[in-house]
Amino acid sequence: MLKSVGLVARFDKEKALKLAEGLAEYLEEKGLKVYMESTLARKVTTKAETTPLEQMKTDFIITIGGDGTILRTSVAIPKPEPPILTINMGVRGFLTEVEPKRTFEAVDKCLKGEYRIEKCMKLSVTANGAKLPDALNEVVVTHNEPAKLLYTRILKNNEPILDCQADSLLISTQTGSTGYSLAAGGPVLDPGVDAFVLTPICPLTDFRPIVFPANSTLAIEVFRPKKMLVLVDGQHSQLISSKLPTVTVTRSKHQASFIRFKEDYYHRLQSRLLFKGTR
Amino acid sequence: MLKSVGLVARFDKEKALKLAEGLAEYLEEKGLKVYMESTLARKVTTKAETTPLEQMKTDFIITIGGDGTILRTSVAIPKPEPPILTINMGVRGFLTEVEPKRTFEAVDKCLKGEYRIEKCMKLSVTANGAKLPDALNEVVVTHNEPAKLLYTRILKNNEPILDCQADSLLISTQTGSTGYSLAAGGPVLDPGVDAFVLTPICPLTDFRPIVFPANSTLAIEVFRPKKMLVLVDGQHSQLISSKLPTVTVTRSKHQASFIRFKEDYYHRLQSRLLFKGTR
Amino acid sequence: MLKSVGLVARFDKEKALKLAEGLAEYLEEKGLKVYMESTLARKVTTKAETTPLEQMKTDFIITIGGDGTILRTSVAIPKPEPPILTINMGVRGFLTEVEPKRTFEAVDKCLKGEYRIEKCMKLSVTANGAKLPDALNEVVVTHNEPAKLLYTRILKNNEPILDCQADSLLISTQTGSTGYSLAAGGPVLDPGVDAFVLTPICPLTDFRPIVFPANSTLAIEVFRPKKMLVLVDGQHSQLISSKLPTVTVTRSKHQASFIRFKEDYYHRLQSRLLFKGTR
Amino acid sequence: MLKSVGLVARFDKEKALKLAEGLAEYLEEKGLKVYMESTLARKVTTKAETTPLEQMKTDFIITIGGDGTILRTSVAIPKPEPPILTINMGVRGFLTEVEPKRTFEAVDKCLKGEYRIEKCMKLSVTANGAKLPDALNEVVVTHNEPAKLLYTRILKNNEPILDCQADSLLISTQTGSTGYSLAAGGPVLDPGVDAFVLTPICPLTDFRPIVFPANSTLAIEVFRPKKMLVLVDGQHSQLISSKLPTVTVTRSKHQASFIRFKEDYYHRLQSRLLFKGTR
Repeated sequence: MLKSVGLVARFDKEKALKLAEGLAEYLEEKGLKVYMESTLARKVTTKAETTPLEQMKTDFIITIGGDGTILRTSVAIPKPEPPILTINMGVRGFLTEVEPKRTFEAVDKCLKGEYRIEKCMKLSVTANGAKLPDALNEVVVTHNEPAKLLYTRILKNNEPILDCQADSLLISTQTGSTGYSLAAGGPVLDPGVDAFVLTPICPLTDFRPIVFPANSTLAIEVFRPKKMLVLVDGQHSQLISSKLPTVTVTRSKHQASFIRFKEDYYHRLQSRLLFKGTR
Repeated sequence: MLKSVGLVARFDKEKALKLAEGLAEYLEEKGLKVYMESTLARKVTTKAETTPLEQMKTDFIITIGGDGTILRTSVAIPKPEPPILTINMGVRGFLTEVEPKRTFEAVDKCLKGEYRIEKCMKLSVTANGAKLPDALNEVVVTHNEPAKLLYTRILKNNEPILDCQADSLLISTQTGSTGYSLAAGGPVLDPGVDAFVLTPICPLTDFRPIVFPANSTLAIEVFRPKKMLVLVDGQHSQLISSKLPTVTVTRSKHQASFIRFKEDYYHRLQSRLLFKGTR
Repeated sequence: MLKSVGLVARFDKEKALKLAEGLAEYLEEKGLKVYMESTLARKVTTKAETTPLEQMKTDFIITIGGDGTILRTSVAIPKPEPPILTINMGVRGFLTEVEPKRTFEAVDKCLKGEYRIEKCMKLSVTANGAKLPDALNEVVVTHNEPAKLLYTRILKNNEPILDCQADSLLISTQTGSTGYSLAAGGPVLDPGVDAFVLTPICPLTDFRPIVFPANSTLAIEVFRPKKMLVLVDGQHSQLISSKLPTVTVTRSKHQASFIRFKEDYYHRLQSRLLFKGTR
Repeated sequence: MLKSVGLVARFDKEKALKLAEGLAEYLEEKGLKVYMESTLARKVTTKAETTPLEQMKTDFIITIGGDGTILRTSVAIPKPEPPILTINMGVRGFLTEVEPKRTFEAVDKCLKGEYRIEKCMKLSVTANGAKLPDALNEVVVTHNEPAKLLYTRILKNNEPILDCQADSLLISTQTGSTGYSLAAGGPVLDPGVDAFVLTPICPLTDFRPIVFPANSTLAIEVFRPKKMLVLVDGQHSQLISSKLPTVTVTRSKHQASFIRFKEDYYHRLQSRLLFKGTR
């Protein structure tokens, strides 16, 4: 049974802050222990306890916002991750489940246990040997200046396989395949496929997205310039400089957990401006 | 040890026929029992026995030609398939391994056992309940008239997931992902990924390639017009007419076997006019 | 002043036939001489005169249907073409202007002269020296069997410029650039640009759409197989067999004329499932 | 007759510096007045006069390098531009004409007058009302941080036509259409077409390249964030911050001039890893 809950919301939307306040009150009335993310807590009126994301060890978490809010939460919360219930208040909303007006209905279902957990693969990311946060959506390797080429070599399980010159290279999970990777021309990965996808942005020569098995280790070496910017889920960025800056990616042992009410991944896909066939 | 061999070649190239003759002689000198594919046998001078592809139960098979010759062989030979050594005399040569001038060198390596076997997934295909040959590259569902739309519904494990209007839909294996599916805008599937990919040709609305797990069952229902043409590996075509013509695809229990000398799938990819990064 | 009108409608939709009947009556009451397309006339109850499309020399024409109905009309009517008022009852509706419920409102505006004429470039098409109908949308050169490669050479102003192997090649007008060519991956041509675009379908190697000046002459030679199917606007198809079947395309001296009420080409584009940015 | 010449070369390649030295000597022996670009002059041993690019009013200019060197030259030299002879020592070489080993042969042809001039359209660029250098290849509008979305509105001749959310928007000339725009998925514009093309990078929703007439004025307003980075030919960059940062682009009255020996634009295209059909 769910006894404690963490609340996270985007800060830049009045509606999101109001909903967070309302939810805190509602959940406390229902007898739950409510923890509000500490930066959010400063912007709202609440009696809830506050806690930084990094210590949010609650039974579940509610995010109010778009994919950005979810990704920010998933990057920061303790592992193994508490399941996340996602209320949609964003532009890109591929990950979100619940429309705002159905918030309380969804919370009630949660408390009655009428939900299922969707586990999503994350990517373990190492840059020049140093561990970065796991990626739920994608890792981007790019130049730190706009519209400049990276000269890269791609290695699979330590063997060089291809060279690629491009503005950026993305390595995306199944979850991320409907996000930035799709915008860059990548395929959709069905959630059941055990794989990730490498998608280039503006490759100099014909270079298509490649789908790799999730248990393979993919490395990207940047041999020109002597630096690269690594972006995890659009949230965590790090500039790496060295003789041969290298990022290495493989399946993480951690997974993200989402609270879902319906089975239909593809229904969600269609309602997001995509794959809208007409009959 | 390899004691018997089947020979298959394309008929429309004099060089291929000559090489087949030479190979037959060479292999018999080496003490192997040589079987020549029966239609080929009629076009060359040979002392080898002849046999139709359907009965070519030899220790291994040599094909001389392009991907078309390999696909024709793989569709017809008895299951489980003998391993195939592929000599390249074609235009599309993604599947082929050996350049013509290295034919005898390659055969010698084979006979000394210096090779590895590459197993390739095939797709099991059913159209309106009737079994079609397994596909090594892809299954194409299309209109029987050029440039006409199919109105389709796609089902995964018997659940409708998406509607798609397009000229054609391809379901392609990892092997086939570098062939027709690539030309249609599909991603490359690394040979180690346990998946197949659905790629539309000329979809009416935005519809991207989708990668599915190999153990899923994908069905395509054509609700307009009341017919569809199904093409397996560009070799076997069948026109299906009914109220709701349906093709169903999943991983076959059979696999194709290829004789390979080098590990490098990606080297082969690069030498085929693709992914030619410059340094 | 508009005194005579031709009526054309798709046959397969009861609603379209009903609207045609109603329109005929309404227009006769308004004092216009009404001519109904002869095959349509057989399917409806009308007192209007009947005439084949080829002789429809009326002051303007009303089409009820989708792009198919418009293209069928534009291919057949006498030149110079009477202006066409397009009522949308189709799936692909890039060319249509008026939603069905606004039909009578639109007709009234027409009769009051409150409209502008949009002139659209057409392509003059010659296959092996024989004239085909002008194309309003596009000319398709394809194999007569599905999923088979054409080996082509492209000539600009009689000079060979590129070879291309593909399933099909499209040459599309500005108008057609939002239709089949777009589905094949082509760019949108703004109506004001003096150009047409060559778009390949499933090219064997990297081959991008190319935009040519409208006054250039583009020829496609098919050197394998010794035949090709030429399709004009999806309406007129012709199989050409010869040693080197060749189709030649350039700007026609004829144009299509459409009755439009609003300036906004781009508004029409957005309302057709495309370019739907969100703010 | 050509009496004076300017020399420009990339600095980072020893071979380019050596060739510049050799050329200076050769051209002086032939009786020409040689001006070496001033930063280059510092890196080589030469008796030639030195001059900054901005004052290089010679009869013609020779560039030794890739497209970057040409673009840098074209942006800086006085208008109207002296014709440029381009020696290829770069990676991206779509603009270059002469292979290094044919340098002296090409120069001899020049001096004998055996060449033609190719005029290339340039784009006039204004950002928030301030004039930027003309673009020979393209103008890029992008975020100043990598992998972040721009929310833009596109205006044609002062009328808003479409909204687009993307990482970047390119407006590219015919010349530039084979460069960055191609990498971003844009079409090739034949040099004879009187147009430019708008190509998005990683658009959030389906948004295709659009080809506009060269005499139209295209503006891009960035309504989120309140700033944008404008890049001209990858050479000149400017960060614009305001309430509604706007870049406006139209055909320039200036053109670039290139010295060419062969007619074949398409031959050059093919030799650059593209459009490599096989027969």
